[in-house]
Amino acid sequence: MAEPGPAFDVDDPVLARAAWSRIAEPGDQVAGALVTHLGAGDALAWLYDAATGTSPVVPRRLEQHPERPSVGRVQRAVERWRGRLATLDPGRELRALDRLGGALLVPGDPRWPTAVDDLGDAAPLALWVRGETDLGDLARRSVALVGARACTEYGRHVAADLASGLVDRRFTIVSGGAYGIDAAAHRGAIAARGRTVAFLAGGVDRLYPAGNTDLLQAVLDEGSIVSEVPPGSVPSRVRFLQRNRLIAAFSRATVVVEAAWRSGALSTATHASALLRPVGAVPGPVTSMASGGCHQLLREAKAVCVTDADEAAELAGDVGTDAPTPRAGRPAPQDDLDELGRRLWDALPLRAHAAVDSVARAAGLGLDETLGGLGHLELAGLAEQSGGRWRQAARPPQRVGSTVRRG
Amino acid sequence: MAEPGPAFDVDDPVLARAAWSRIAEPGDQVAGALVTHLGAGDALAWLYDAATGTSPVVPRRLEQHPERPSVGRVQRAVERWRGRLATLDPGRELRALDRLGGALLVPGDPRWPTAVDDLGDAAPLALWVRGETDLGDLARRSVALVGARACTEYGRHVAADLASGLVDRRFTIVSGGAYGIDAAAHRGAIAARGRTVAFLAGGVDRLYPAGNTDLLQAVLDEGSIVSEVPPGSVPSRVRFLQRNRLIAAFSRATVVVEAAWRSGALSTATHASALLRPVGAVPGPVTSMASGGCHQLLREAKAVCVTDADEAAELAGDVGTDAPTPRAGRPAPQDDLDELGRRLWDALPLRAHAAVDSVARAAGLGLDETLGGLGHLELAGLAEQSGGRWRQAARPPQRVGSTVRRG
Repeated sequence: MAEPGPAFDVDDPVLARAAWSRIAEPGDQVAGALVTHLGAGDALAWLYDAATGTSPVVPRRLEQHPERPSVGRVQRAVERWRGRLATLDPGRELRALDRLGGALLVPGDPRWPTAVDDLGDAAPLALWVRGETDLGDLARRSVALVGARACTEYGRHVAADLASGLVDRRFTIVSGGAYGIDAAAHRGAIAARGRTVAFLAGGVDRLYPAGNTDLLQAVLDEGSIVSEVPPGSVPSRVRFLQRNRLIAAFSRATVVVEAAWRSGALSTATHASALLRPVGAVPGPVTSMASGGCHQLLREAKAVCVTDADEAAELAGDVGTDAPTPRAGRPAPQDDLDELGRRLWDALPLRAHAAVDSVARAAGLGLDETLGGLGHLELAGLAEQSGGRWRQAARPPQRVGSTVRRG
Repeated sequence: MAEPGPAFDVDDPVLARAAWSRIAEPGDQVAGALVTHLGAGDALAWLYDAATGTSPVVPRRLEQHPERPSVGRVQRAVERWRGRLATLDPGRELRALDRLGGALLVPGDPRWPTAVDDLGDAAPLALWVRGETDLGDLARRSVALVGARACTEYGRHVAADLASGLVDRRFTIVSGGAYGIDAAAHRGAIAARGRTVAFLAGGVDRLYPAGNTDLLQAVLDEGSIVSEVPPGSVPSRVRFLQRNRLIAAFSRATVVVEAAWRSGALSTATHASALLRPVGAVPGPVTSMASGGCHQLLREAKAVCVTDADEAAELAGDVGTDAPTPRAGRPAPQDDLDELGRRLWDALPLRAHAAVDSVARAAGLGLDETLGGLGHLELAGLAEQSGGRWRQAARPPQRVGSTVRRG
């Protein structure tokens, strides 16, 4: 089956990468290996030859690749790419992107988010971006909030809450633009006037799903919409799953807000783990199917329990500056007492005053210990006496930090 | 301050242990060391002498104890015990227990729950029991379900559910007889016609708290009520905290169902951890303060995430026999497809049939791969053709286990 030669300049690296992102499906590791080792233009020239049967099947330069694909794998790849060569026109797609105000990013561009290169041969061949195009800057301090489309009001609430709390801590919120948790995360970020990035499974020309058009338009205004497939591409199931790997690689950490047992959001967590990115999971009621996947991540120690924005920031942030604020709880003045002081304090009546020997018996303490201890409690403002009889102080001091002050 | 000699036979080990459980507060390690190394009777005789000042301060036999208490600690202990010697009458307390149909257990009794001996010097000196007295048998297969008094409807529901599910798996439910989670756990066990044990902070003659009298009466009928302090003893804060260590030591595993940040239930978890017993925590909504302590246990990896009775049984049960049933999720027939099969299946239309080359393009696959793959899908009952055009099967087969069968 003879193919015509390329109708564009394969030596233009942007055009060549754009063409490859149309030829190969996201995550195609044979394409990744070829483009990395030959360069996008030479790989394309090789492919045109291979598709017409005039070139050796595996390019010689691929032989240095430690995990080079087998001959059979390369042949099958050429077979599946061949059908897309005839209609290839990256220039038209780039003009379409340009009309939308977008930009195509390729590795080497200063705006390229280098974190995605951790995907190796499965790294994206190019990124089609609308909105803010400096993805490197957006990725630097970012958290992915992902979860089920079929979420509950609880999940929606927590996602929006985490997003706005993370925006307050200057994080970018990354998600997939889908219904449910994704939408709530983007919305929370926008409401807090923060930056947010939506990775789409189809082309950036269609704001899919249709019900989220207004939301995705707002995402465009406050951040970016990104895809690794060219404008005009439809979102398929495979592209949804591959999109998850991209969210995981792009973000500093991934938090699964709500996900049932078989939710696709769990695949994002799995990708993040494989890339050694921190993973968090938000717990929920055990009676809610929608939290089943999160609980499984926690049970299998594949995720850290995340209950608020502080804890999410700790996962994704810089050691030291993003450590969570210690919880205050509700400290009580008697918390600082030692075992004997505590026993004595518990033995003191609240209202009527009691004689020392009765306090000693109630506390199970000796008389000397009791007298000494009561003196300490009085000094700390925790006990008061009247005519040698004792009770708990009516107005104990406020506890501030770990010191006891008079109220 | 001279004390009269004992008004009972100190050489009777049951009477002597009964007396010690009145003299020393629960968890008093000096008392534990003395009773263990001298025997309860000799320790008591020594104490009477020490209290009148006629015996050496630290008994010689204690010198072999690797962690023997210091002279000062023993002297302070004698000081706090002295006040209780005058009113000591273990025979009367034993007769009171007898009238209630109970029994006093001491180490060596075949019914003694040897698990509590893991507490070392802090082990209980005796256990006052009403109801079923074979605590060893009750402990053998047991789970403690603990949590906050101030619980939510959610916590109550989960506690009762876990209790009845664990009863179905032949576990004894252990708790503290308090309001809230404790009560729900006991109730769930009784409703499922199982055995349950309540450890009280006060004497077993008073079914405390008063609002739980009917429940505790039912616990008595279906299991046991246990205390380490004699009848007539009041529940104090110190005794509540020490009671928690006993629940943790007695049970094979401890599950915290609902607990806020400063809940006493967390102390039970801490004791269980220190004793190397498995600890579980039930997650809940992050918006609920009542689950804050559970989430903290999960975050600090001090507890395993427990969402149902299977998972609780796995913590407390025997390896192998109590492994949880794997979750079925909602398997779909296409789950068993490989990457290419999946890609092809996703590319097939649901209703109208499509030509092979259009399917190949949509899937991003070669023609040969597509034809071969469609044949496999047809064999598996997942695709159907009409005049060489293809679509997804209208009625795909049911997936059973990991095999695909025709529907």
